[in-house]
Amino acid sequence: MNRLQLRALLEEVRSGSLTPEAAQDRLLQFLRQAPFEDLGFARVDHHRNTRQGFPEVVFGQGKTPAQIAAIAQRIADAGQSLLVTRSDQSAYDAILAILPGARFHELARSITWDAGNVPRGRGTIAIAAAGTADLPVAEEAAVTAELMGNTIERIYDVGVAGLHRLLAEHSRLTSARVIIVAAGMEGALPSVVAGLVDVPVVAVPTSIGYGASFGGLTALLAMLNSCAIGVSVVNIDNGFGAAAIASAINHLD
Amino acid sequence: MNRLQLRALLEEVRSGSLTPEAAQDRLLQFLRQAPFEDLGFARVDHHRNTRQGFPEVVFGQGKTPAQIAAIAQRIADAGQSLLVTRSDQSAYDAILAILPGARFHELARSITWDAGNVPRGRGTIAIAAAGTADLPVAEEAAVTAELMGNTIERIYDVGVAGLHRLLAEHSRLTSARVIIVAAGMEGALPSVVAGLVDVPVVAVPTSIGYGASFGGLTALLAMLNSCAIGVSVVNIDNGFGAAAIASAINHLD
Amino acid sequence: MNRLQLRALLEEVRSGSLTPEAAQDRLLQFLRQAPFEDLGFARVDHHRNTRQGFPEVVFGQGKTPAQIAAIAQRIADAGQSLLVTRSDQSAYDAILAILPGARFHELARSITWDAGNVPRGRGTIAIAAAGTADLPVAEEAAVTAELMGNTIERIYDVGVAGLHRLLAEHSRLTSARVIIVAAGMEGALPSVVAGLVDVPVVAVPTSIGYGASFGGLTALLAMLNSCAIGVSVVNIDNGFGAAAIASAINHLD
Amino acid sequence: MNRLQLRALLEEVRSGSLTPEAAQDRLLQFLRQAPFEDLGFARVDHHRNTRQGFPEVVFGQGKTPAQIAAIAQRIADAGQSLLVTRSDQSAYDAILAILPGARFHELARSITWDAGNVPRGRGTIAIAAAGTADLPVAEEAAVTAELMGNTIERIYDVGVAGLHRLLAEHSRLTSARVIIVAAGMEGALPSVVAGLVDVPVVAVPTSIGYGASFGGLTALLAMLNSCAIGVSVVNIDNGFGAAAIASAINHLD
Amino acid sequence: MNRLQLRALLEEVRSGSLTPEAAQDRLLQFLRQAPFEDLGFARVDHHRNTRQGFPEVVFGQGKTPAQIAAIAQRIADAGQSLLVTRSDQSAYDAILAILPGARFHELARSITWDAGNVPRGRGTIAIAAAGTADLPVAEEAAVTAELMGNTIERIYDVGVAGLHRLLAEHSRLTSARVIIVAAGMEGALPSVVAGLVDVPVVAVPTSIGYGASFGGLTALLAMLNSCAIGVSVVNIDNGFGAAAIASAINHLD
Amino acid sequence: MNRLQLRALLEEVRSGSLTPEAAQDRLLQFLRQAPFEDLGFARVDHHRNTRQGFPEVVFGQGKTPAQIAAIAQRIADAGQSLLVTRSDQSAYDAILAILPGARFHELARSITWDAGNVPRGRGTIAIAAAGTADLPVAEEAAVTAELMGNTIERIYDVGVAGLHRLLAEHSRLTSARVIIVAAGMEGALPSVVAGLVDVPVVAVPTSIGYGASFGGLTALLAMLNSCAIGVSVVNIDNGFGAAAIASAINHLD
Amino acid sequence: MNRLQLRALLEEVRSGSLTPEAAQDRLLQFLRQAPFEDLGFARVDHHRNTRQGFPEVVFGQGKTPAQIAAIAQRIADAGQSLLVTRSDQSAYDAILAILPGARFHELARSITWDAGNVPRGRGTIAIAAAGTADLPVAEEAAVTAELMGNTIERIYDVGVAGLHRLLAEHSRLTSARVIIVAAGMEGALPSVVAGLVDVPVVAVPTSIGYGASFGGLTALLAMLNSCAIGVSVVNIDNGFGAAAIASAINHLD
Amino acid sequence: MNRLQLRALLEEVRSGSLTPEAAQDRLLQFLRQAPFEDLGFARVDHHRNTRQGFPEVVFGQGKTPAQIAAIAQRIADAGQSLLVTRSDQSAYDAILAILPGARFHELARSITWDAGNVPRGRGTIAIAAAGTADLPVAEEAAVTAELMGNTIERIYDVGVAGLHRLLAEHSRLTSARVIIVAAGMEGALPSVVAGLVDVPVVAVPTSIGYGASFGGLTALLAMLNSCAIGVSVVNIDNGFGAAAIASAINHLD
Repeated sequence: MNRLQLRALLEEVRSGSLTPEAAQDRLLQFLRQAPFEDLGFARVDHHRNTRQGFPEVVFGQGKTPAQIAAIAQRIADAGQSLLVTRSDQSAYDAILAILPGARFHELARSITWDAGNVPRGRGTIAIAAAGTADLPVAEEAAVTAELMGNTIERIYDVGVAGLHRLLAEHSRLTSARVIIVAAGMEGALPSVVAGLVDVPVVAVPTSIGYGASFGGLTALLAMLNSCAIGVSVVNIDNGFGAAAIASAINHLD
Repeated sequence: MNRLQLRALLEEVRSGSLTPEAAQDRLLQFLRQAPFEDLGFARVDHHRNTRQGFPEVVFGQGKTPAQIAAIAQRIADAGQSLLVTRSDQSAYDAILAILPGARFHELARSITWDAGNVPRGRGTIAIAAAGTADLPVAEEAAVTAELMGNTIERIYDVGVAGLHRLLAEHSRLTSARVIIVAAGMEGALPSVVAGLVDVPVVAVPTSIGYGASFGGLTALLAMLNSCAIGVSVVNIDNGFGAAAIASAINHLD
Repeated sequence: MNRLQLRALLEEVRSGSLTPEAAQDRLLQFLRQAPFEDLGFARVDHHRNTRQGFPEVVFGQGKTPAQIAAIAQRIADAGQSLLVTRSDQSAYDAILAILPGARFHELARSITWDAGNVPRGRGTIAIAAAGTADLPVAEEAAVTAELMGNTIERIYDVGVAGLHRLLAEHSRLTSARVIIVAAGMEGALPSVVAGLVDVPVVAVPTSIGYGASFGGLTALLAMLNSCAIGVSVVNIDNGFGAAAIASAINHLD
Repeated sequence: MNRLQLRALLEEVRSGSLTPEAAQDRLLQFLRQAPFEDLGFARVDHHRNTRQGFPEVVFGQGKTPAQIAAIAQRIADAGQSLLVTRSDQSAYDAILAILPGARFHELARSITWDAGNVPRGRGTIAIAAAGTADLPVAEEAAVTAELMGNTIERIYDVGVAGLHRLLAEHSRLTSARVIIVAAGMEGALPSVVAGLVDVPVVAVPTSIGYGASFGGLTALLAMLNSCAIGVSVVNIDNGFGAAAIASAINHLD
Repeated sequence: MNRLQLRALLEEVRSGSLTPEAAQDRLLQFLRQAPFEDLGFARVDHHRNTRQGFPEVVFGQGKTPAQIAAIAQRIADAGQSLLVTRSDQSAYDAILAILPGARFHELARSITWDAGNVPRGRGTIAIAAAGTADLPVAEEAAVTAELMGNTIERIYDVGVAGLHRLLAEHSRLTSARVIIVAAGMEGALPSVVAGLVDVPVVAVPTSIGYGASFGGLTALLAMLNSCAIGVSVVNIDNGFGAAAIASAINHLD
Repeated sequence: MNRLQLRALLEEVRSGSLTPEAAQDRLLQFLRQAPFEDLGFARVDHHRNTRQGFPEVVFGQGKTPAQIAAIAQRIADAGQSLLVTRSDQSAYDAILAILPGARFHELARSITWDAGNVPRGRGTIAIAAAGTADLPVAEEAAVTAELMGNTIERIYDVGVAGLHRLLAEHSRLTSARVIIVAAGMEGALPSVVAGLVDVPVVAVPTSIGYGASFGGLTALLAMLNSCAIGVSVVNIDNGFGAAAIASAINHLD
Repeated sequence: MNRLQLRALLEEVRSGSLTPEAAQDRLLQFLRQAPFEDLGFARVDHHRNTRQGFPEVVFGQGKTPAQIAAIAQRIADAGQSLLVTRSDQSAYDAILAILPGARFHELARSITWDAGNVPRGRGTIAIAAAGTADLPVAEEAAVTAELMGNTIERIYDVGVAGLHRLLAEHSRLTSARVIIVAAGMEGALPSVVAGLVDVPVVAVPTSIGYGASFGGLTALLAMLNSCAIGVSVVNIDNGFGAAAIASAINHLD
Repeated sequence: MNRLQLRALLEEVRSGSLTPEAAQDRLLQFLRQAPFEDLGFARVDHHRNTRQGFPEVVFGQGKTPAQIAAIAQRIADAGQSLLVTRSDQSAYDAILAILPGARFHELARSITWDAGNVPRGRGTIAIAAAGTADLPVAEEAAVTAELMGNTIERIYDVGVAGLHRLLAEHSRLTSARVIIVAAGMEGALPSVVAGLVDVPVVAVPTSIGYGASFGGLTALLAMLNSCAIGVSVVNIDNGFGAAAIASAINHLD
C-alpha cells in the first residue's frame, strides 16, 4: 500500500463508499503483513542505491558464471551500476555477453559496469597499502570506491619498515578527505598513517603473511589496538567494505 | 630550527657573513638530528589539537590522582581542553583543586575541562546503546564527542531483542551525520542500525556479558562480520576512540 | 495510536470534520515515528509477560541493592512476578522491605516474588546436574522454571563417571517433557542423557573446572559437538536461559 | 535373556528342575554381561526410531557411494525411512538403483527415502535463513524436518540488515510452534527473531563468511550470547541437528 | 535388591509361595528402576576404594572448613582414608578436631588421614619437577601417591635449561616403575625424561609462567606434542590426577 | 669409544706404552666430544628397541614411497620390526618389493613387518572407539599394540549416546590391563569408561566432527577435563602414541 | 634535492640571484614533499644492502616464474646478490635463463645468486634442527646465512628425546658465535641448547606436527616461554628471518 | 671425579696398584651416575655467571621477603651480583638489612646489588619504549642490562603515532650495537625501528592495552609478524629476558 492507495482509501471513507470499520480492518491488515518496502515512504531512507546510485554488489565467490550473469541481466534491466567482487575471468566472459561495457579488474578480482548515475563524492579517498601482496585488497577498495563516485589516490608499497617511502607521500595523504589503509603481517601501517593526518582512517587487515599471522588475525588485532587516534577497522580482506564506508564519509555534505 | 631561524640563516648567506659551505653543513646537521616538531612547519598538519582544539586525552586507569592532577596543571597553563577517561572521584577531587570548572561524568567515568576553543562539528552524532549495562561506554563516547565540539543524540536501551524500541527512534537515527553504536553480548545492534541508515556507523563492542562473551570478544567479532554496509569497528569498550572518529567525520567540511 | 484512536480518525474522515489529506498526513506521521508498541496490536505477540505471566527478570550482577529494590517497587506496582538472578543477601534485604513475600534462594543466588498469575506448563521439567559444584546453575534454572509455572524434578549428582547413579534415575528422566542438563568439566552428561530419552534436552555448560576447562569453554564445546540427537545449548552458567527455553517448550499446547 | 527366557527360568525354579542357587547364578551372570538391548525392555524408551518413525540418519561425508548404498539396502529391508546428509549426486545414483523412490535434494545436499510411517508433528516449524548462502544449511534442516513428519514454513533471505523483509514475515513467524534460524557472519538473526515471538528458537550458526568469521565461530558465539530469551544453539552448519530438536518439540503432546 | 533378596525371591518361587509371573514382574520392576549400586554386585568392579583402599578425595577449593569437616566425619565413621586437595590451614584445623591423626601438607595444599588399609604398589613412582615453583603441583602428586600406597622418589629442580642436574638423576629415573613429570613454562621436561627411560611418563603441565604461558596452556600443548614416546598428559595443575594414574599403573600385577 | 677400546687404553697404561698424561688427554677428549651412543654403555637404558624389540616407527605422511622403502631396507638388514603410520597403498607396494612379509592395514593406514622378536605383554589391551569414523585412529593403535607384542580386544562403536552398547561390553573392559579409548566430537567416552574400570585409561581424541569440533580440539579438551579418575591423554589422532604408552604399561612386570 | 642541489641553491643566495625569501620557499616546499630517499643523506644508514652487500630477498610464494625472473633481471643489472625463498624448480628454470650462475637449493626451497660482494661475518653460525622434517626450515636459514657471508655449522636431527645426539655436538655448539635452533612439535630444543651455551640463540618454530601442534603454534609458544636465558624467537617457519638476525649478530664488530 | 682424580686413577693403573679391569669398572660407574657438574670440565662452558659475572637472577613474584632475603644472603657469601625482578619495597627492606649496598629500582620493580666483577659489553644497548605505560618493562630491561655490564641509552615515549619523536632519535638508535624495543597495544614500534637500523632488534611485547590487546598477545603476534628484517621476540613483559639476550650480543668479541 503506497501513498496513493492510502489516499484512495481515505477518499472512499469520506465519500461513504467505505465504512470506517472496514477501513480500519484493511489498515490493520496491511500494517500486520506488509513489508516496509511496500509503504512507499520510510524505506526510501535506507535504500542506499536509490538515493546514492550505490551499485548492486555481488559477492562472486561460490557463484557460477551463469548465476552471476543472471544477476547482471537484472542489473542491466534496472539501469543500475554493478559490482562483482571475488570474481574471475570466466564470470567476466559471461557478463560481457550481456553488458558489453563491463570491465574486469584483474588485480582487484572485480567486475564493474557503470550506469553513469552515481553522485560524486566531495573530496579524495587515499588508499594506502603496505606491500605489493596487499594490492588485491587495496584494488578491491579502489575499484569499489571509484564505482561509487569517488576520486582515488593510490599510495602503494609504503610499509612501515621503510618509513621514507611513506613520508614521501605525506602531502598526498594529508590532502585526502578519508584514507583507507590495507596491511597484512603486523598491521602497523594504519597507526603510522593516522599519526600523520587528522582525517578518518579506515583500516583493512589483509590475510597476507604466514605462521603466526593466522590468516590476517594478527593484523586485525593490531589495528584494533592502534595507539593512534582516528582508526576504525573492517573485516580481514574486506576491501569492499572499507570503500563503502570511505565513500559514505566522502559523500557527507 | 623554525621558519625564522631558517630565514636568518639564508640572510646570513646573502650578506656573505656565512659561506654556502657552512650553511650547507648547518642545514644537513639540522636535518639529520632535529625532530620534525622543531621545524616549525609540516608538523602542523598532524597536530590535531592545534588545529581542531582537540582536547588532551589522559587514560586515567593506573595513574594516581596526583599524577593526573599534574597533567591537569599543564593543561591549565596551556589553555587547552582536558579529557580524563577511565577515572574516578578521587582523581576528580585532585583536579578540582586546580581546575575549578572541571566536571566529573560519573557514568562515563570521565573528567572534562572545556577550554572553550573547540570548533563545532557540522551535524549531529547519534549514540545508540543496546542495554543499560553498555551505558558507561556509550557515555564515554558522548562526553568525548561533546568536548570535541559535537552535538549529541543519545538513543539508549534499543537492543535488537525489542525491535520496536529501535524502530521508534528511526527518525533520530536518520537525521544524524554519523552514528556510534555500543553493544555487548552478541553485538548485533550495529548491523541492524546500519541497515536503517546510509551514514557511517562506528561500532563499539562492550565487555558486557558473561561466559562465551569472552570479555567483549564475541561482540567484537560479530561487528567485524556485519552483513550491513557501512560498519567499522574499534576496540572493546573504546568509547573514546569511537567518539574521536565520529568527531573527525563530523568536522569534515 | 491504538485501535480506538485509529477508529476515531476514520470516523472524523467520514463525518467530513477531517479531510483525507489531513488524515493521510497524520497517519504517515504516526507510521514514521511511533513505536510498534504504541500501535495497540502486533506488539502483543511478543510481549511474553503479558501473555504468559512471564516474570520480569533482573540480572543482579553489578547492580546495587538500591537499584534492584527500585525495580522491585515497579514490579510491585504492576503486579507482575519478579526474578532477580546473580544476586545476594543484601539485595534480598532491600527487596524484602518492599515485597514482604519475596524469597531468597541462596544456592541459586536468586530472589523471587510470585504474583500468582503465571499459567502452568503441561508436563514436568527435569533438571539434571553432573556434580554438586554445578548446583548453583542448576538451581538458578530450577527457581526460574518454577516461577514460570513449571513442575520440576531435580536429578542431581549424576555425573558420567558413575553411570549407575544416572541409570537409577531413568524413569524420572523419561517421564519429563523437557530436560535441562547442567555440567562443567568435560560436559558429557547431556550426550548421555539425550541417548536415554526422546524429549528435547537443553544443555547448560557450567564454569566448574580448572586449567583446560577455560571457564566452561570446554564443556560448552563438548555440548555443541554432542553425538546424541536432541541437544541444544545455551551460554555458560546460563541457568536462567535454559529454564526460559524449557518453560517455553513446556507451555506449548 | 528376554522376557520369555526369564519366565522359563522362573518356571524351572518352580518346577524344581532348577535350584534357587543355580538360578541366582544364572541371573547374576546375565546381569553382569548382557547388554540392555538383549533384555527386551527398557531399551524401548530410547529407541527413537521405533517409537517415532525417526529416520535412519547417515552422515554422508567421507563415505563412498557403495558404502552409502549398502546402508540404504539395509534400510530398505527394514522398511524404515532414510536420510543421508552431506551427500552428492554420485551417492544418489547408487541409492536410486536400490530405492527407486529415493529423492535427491541438491541444495540441501541430502538424500531421502520416505517409508511413510512417520507420525505427524502438531504444528508448523518455521525455518528462517539470513542470506542465500545459508540455504544449504537451512534446506538440510527443512528436508530433515519434513522427513520427520513436520510441516515447514521457509522464510529465507531475511537478514537483519534489511529489517523490513523480516518484519513482513511476522505473522508466519508467530504462527509457528518452533522456529529454526540459520545465519552466518555476525549471527544476529536468532536474537531479532526471538524478540518477535514467544516460541522456542533453535539457532544454527553457518560457516558463511570470511576473515574473522572463523568458519562460523563468530556466528556461534553471537548466538550463545543472545540478549533475547528463548534461543538455544547447535553446532555450526548442523541443520540436521536443529531439525531433530525442532521435530522433537513439535511432536510433544 | 541384593544377593540375599534375590535368593529369597527365588526360594519363594521354588516353595510355590510366589508364582513365576509375580516373580517376573518384581524382577522386571527392579531392573527398570534400581540403581546398579543397589544390586550388591557389578558395582564392586568400579568401586576403586573398596578394592584398592583408594582414599576418598575432596576437592577443597570453594568449600568451607565446616563442609570439609563434615565430610571428614563421614570418612572417620567409614574407616576410609581421606585426601583433601586445594585446601588450607583453616580446613585442617576443622578436620583436626575430628581426625586427630590428620596431617597438613602445606606445600601440597593437601590434608590427609591414612586409614592404614591401602594395598602397596609394586614399584616406585618417581616425581620430577622442573622448577621450585612447580613444587605445589608435584607435592600434591606426591602426597596423593603416598596415601594410595606407593613409594615415592622426589627429583626436583631438574629443568631442561640445566641438563646436568637431570642427567645426574638418571639412575633414580630408570629405577622407577612409572614417572610423573611436572613442568610449567615451555613444558619440555617430560619429553627429555621420556627419552631417557622406557616406563610410562605421566606429564602434568603447571600454571607456572607469565605472558604467553597462558596459565599453563603452553606447557599443556607442548606435552601433548611430545616427540618422545611414552608421554600422556593430564589437566593443568592436576597433580592429584597424575598420581591416581601412576598409582593405578603401579598397582597392576 | 666402547668398552673394548676403553679396556685397551687402560691396558696400554698398565703396560707403560701410554703415559697417564696421554691417557688422561685422550679420555677427556673423548668425553667432551663423543656421543653417548659411542660409549657402548648408558645408551642401553633408553634404547627401547634394543630391550623390548620395539619396532622402528616411520611417520609416513610427507614421505615418498621411495624414501619409505629405503628405510624399510635398513630395517630388513637390521632384522628389526617395522611400523609405518599414516601411509598408503603406494608405499606398501614399494615396501613389498623389499620385505615380502610386510602387511598393509588399510583402515589403520599402516604398514607392518614383524621381525618376530618382540617380548609379549602381560595382559590384554582393550581398545574402545566411539564411532565408526574413529576406527582409523583406533586401528592405528591396534596395529601398533599388536606389533609391540600385545593381545588386543577391539570394542568398537560404543559411543555414549547409546550406553547399552557400552555396558554390554563391561566384562571385556574390566578384564583388560589397560584401555585405550578413541573418540571425536564431544570426547565423552573416556570419562564413562574410566568410571566403569580401575585400570589406566589412555584417551585419544580424534579429529572426527565438524564446526565447533575444531579438528579434535573439543574432544582433546573434554578428555583433559575428565571427571573420572584414571584418564590421561595423548595428541589428537595419535593412535600410535596411545598404543606405545599402553604397551609400556602392559609390559611392566 | 641532494647535496649538490642544496649547495647550488645556497650559492645562488650568496650571488644574489636568489633572494632569501625565494630560497626559504623552495626549501620548505622540498622538506614538505620530498622523500628521505631523495635527500642523499640519512638513507645510507638503513640501506642494509648498500652497506653489507645484503642480498635482495624475494618471497617466492604466490609469484609466477615470470614475475620472479623479472626481479632477477633487475638484480642482474644492479649486480646485487639474489635470494628467492619459498620457491620451486619452475622458478629456478626461469631464473637460470637470465642468471646462469644461479643455484637451486631444493630442500631449502630457495634460489640464490651470489654477486660475490658480501662482507664475511666474524664467527660461525650453528644451525640446529630437531628432526629431519624440520630441515626445509633449517636449510632456508642455512642458505640465507651463507649468502649473507657467514660460515655455517649444520647440527641436524638432535631432538630432545635423544639427548645423547645433542650432547655429542656440544663442542660444535659452544664454538659458534650465534645459534639458530629450528624445532616443531613441542619446540623444546632451543631451551636445552641455550642451557648448554652462552651465546645468543635464535629460535625458529616449525609447522611440523599434527593435531594440537596447531601449525607450529605450540612450538612457538613453548619457545617464547623458554626457561633458559638467551632465547629469542621469530615467526613459524621463518628460517630466512632467523638467518638475517644471526647474520646481523655475526657481522657486529 | 675431576681431572685430579682421573689422573690419580690412571697413575694407579700405571703403577699396577689398580688393574685395568677395576679401573674400567670405576670409570664406567662414574660415567653412568655422575652429573656433568662433577666432572670438573665441560660444565665451565655453560656456567654463564662464572665466565661473565652474570648476576644471580631471582623471579621475585610469589616469593616472601624472607625467602628473597635468604637468597640474597647466599649471594653475599658468594660475592656475586644479585638481581631480583618483579619485586617490591618490602623485599627491598629485607635485603637491605643484609646487603647495605643494594638498590631498589621502583619503576623497574627490581632490586640489584652489584658485586663489581662484571665484564663490560663492547657497545651501547639502546632501549626504546612506545609509551610511558611500557616503562616498567623497559626499565626492567635497563636495570638488568646495566647490572650485566652494559652502557644503556633510554629512548622513551617514541610510539609510532608520533613518528617525529622517533625520527628525532635516529642517531642514538643507529649508534647502538643492539636495540631493545618495548611496546604494548598494536606492537608496531619494533618494525619501524628495525627499518631504520641494521643492528639486531630484540622486541618485548608488553601487556599494556585493554580489550582486544588480550594481555599483550596482540603486541606479541604483531612483533612475530614484523615486515622488517632483524626482529626477534621474547615473552610478554619479559624485560629481563630481552636484556639478557642484548647483553649476550653486546659481549660478543
